[in-house]
Amino acid sequence: MILTVTLNTALDITYRVGALRPHTSHRVSDVTERPGGKGVNVARVLAALGHETTVTGFAGGATGRTVRERLAGVPGVRDALLAVSGPTRRTIAVVDELTGDTTQLNEPGPQITPAEWGAFLGHYEELLSGAAAVALCGSLPPGVPVGAYAGLIKSARSTGVPVLLDTSGEPLRRGVAARPDLVKPNAAELAELTGSHDPLRATQDARRRGARTVVASLGPQGLLARTPQGHWRAAPPTQEHGNPTGAGDSAAAGLLSGLVEQLPWPDCLTRAVALSAATVRSPTAGDFDRAAYEKLLAQVSVTAA
Amino acid sequence: MILTVTLNTALDITYRVGALRPHTSHRVSDVTERPGGKGVNVARVLAALGHETTVTGFAGGATGRTVRERLAGVPGVRDALLAVSGPTRRTIAVVDELTGDTTQLNEPGPQITPAEWGAFLGHYEELLSGAAAVALCGSLPPGVPVGAYAGLIKSARSTGVPVLLDTSGEPLRRGVAARPDLVKPNAAELAELTGSHDPLRATQDARRRGARTVVASLGPQGLLARTPQGHWRAAPPTQEHGNPTGAGDSAAAGLLSGLVEQLPWPDCLTRAVALSAATVRSPTAGDFDRAAYEKLLAQVSVTAA
Repeated sequence: MILTVTLNTALDITYRVGALRPHTSHRVSDVTERPGGKGVNVARVLAALGHETTVTGFAGGATGRTVRERLAGVPGVRDALLAVSGPTRRTIAVVDELTGDTTQLNEPGPQITPAEWGAFLGHYEELLSGAAAVALCGSLPPGVPVGAYAGLIKSARSTGVPVLLDTSGEPLRRGVAARPDLVKPNAAELAELTGSHDPLRATQDARRRGARTVVASLGPQGLLARTPQGHWRAAPPTQEHGNPTGAGDSAAAGLLSGLVEQLPWPDCLTRAVALSAATVRSPTAGDFDRAAYEKLLAQVSVTAA
Repeated sequence: MILTVTLNTALDITYRVGALRPHTSHRVSDVTERPGGKGVNVARVLAALGHETTVTGFAGGATGRTVRERLAGVPGVRDALLAVSGPTRRTIAVVDELTGDTTQLNEPGPQITPAEWGAFLGHYEELLSGAAAVALCGSLPPGVPVGAYAGLIKSARSTGVPVLLDTSGEPLRRGVAARPDLVKPNAAELAELTGSHDPLRATQDARRRGARTVVASLGPQGLLARTPQGHWRAAPPTQEHGNPTGAGDSAAAGLLSGLVEQLPWPDCLTRAVALSAATVRSPTAGDFDRAAYEKLLAQVSVTAA
């Protein structure tokens, strides 16, 4: 089983409108809802790849209830979310029908009490004992200590469970210092962590700060990996046009599944890039186009960097 | 008991953001939720004025559950909503913290099946038998026939229950033809109904189309009333600055409560204008400032028009 941790789960809502004009009223023509938060997205892709996956983190209130009802309908994903008193946040993506551009509104998330955080730590330890790997994903809700991921990484390491960290800002900085097996920052997150806008230099610096392997996402250009076994660049055959929502989470799922299957790094990277591009190509945000994925596997180029 | 009908109830969500910029991502700093839809707002104000009020219409899904949970906490308001299979819509008001301007996103509402609409008609007849007056408010959800209000007005008239209609477009046009006791359009709705932008002429025309009394809302300038007893203009002492959300619903509650208490028209109009201005002045959208309301009662001017 692969465990994904989403401390700030979400009910992801997508609205389609003619065109978003500030300070006017809009009739939404189409509404879709799905359980979200980076770790939930990663779990969905892992399950689609055939990996038994368990989702943990927090869920509360009416929105939390909806997230759990929807999760129950996803084959291969087990719900091990912990109930909390505060309501799970919503995120609203407002898509302009004309341009396809998206405006995002993200609620901050529930206030987690010290007792709830304490309960989570025990729950996490139990889940770790059955996990082949763990992914720690996304932002922290209010009340969760900024060093939370560092603690969760230490627990995973002491249990011998490989751990992927995908977050940003101070939680990433502190998490990296706790020596995770893999971090997957995008270019902006990596620059914020290291102060360098040169991806080669920045990935090297992130490793020096504690990450065993760094796989930087360079958006449509693919991935740049710096691992103990070597350095690679992996790129899709063409730059994909479409909705990049969830592409990073698909890449994380690709890397983590490859790690668990003990694939060589070039194969892990190929899978991650193919999944990511197939996600951009899918009409539904965060889903991947399976036929495109299988085709892309043969088309991704991996070169020494 | 006063009955308010809200066929398209809503979970009204308010987000505060620094400034809304299309095609970027926003962190929402504050989230508030309350049960909404025009008839629900009218009921809340009626209850605050001491009138026992019953709310009916439709509620469904997780959002409907939240609406009903919240309604249970409003003293003086009884929940007689009918459960339906589709989910109650959300409305999102995004408030720019800097300017105070609001951007509105309104979901369309649940699809009402013919069986659900039929069940509602029976439910409504039962509720009418105990009602001193009824308010029919707001838009129609998908599936409800466009002549719905006309039918509900005929039922009320045949039971001898006075009826206020507050809607727009074709449902207003058809409703007016069914001879309601009172319609409360704003200037835009009145112009759309009658084709005239002259409020005096338009209110006269609306009466000719079937409404016994027409009270047009002229925004910050107050109300213009054309009744069988005379014609009046009612204006607040100053033009209020603030959030106009819910001001029209407060005016409707003022008129309806006055009708039930058999107040003379000038007193009804005074109450409606004072409530409306006190709603604009309140920091919370759709609530009225009671101290301001009581002060304004002595300051509203009513003149023959």
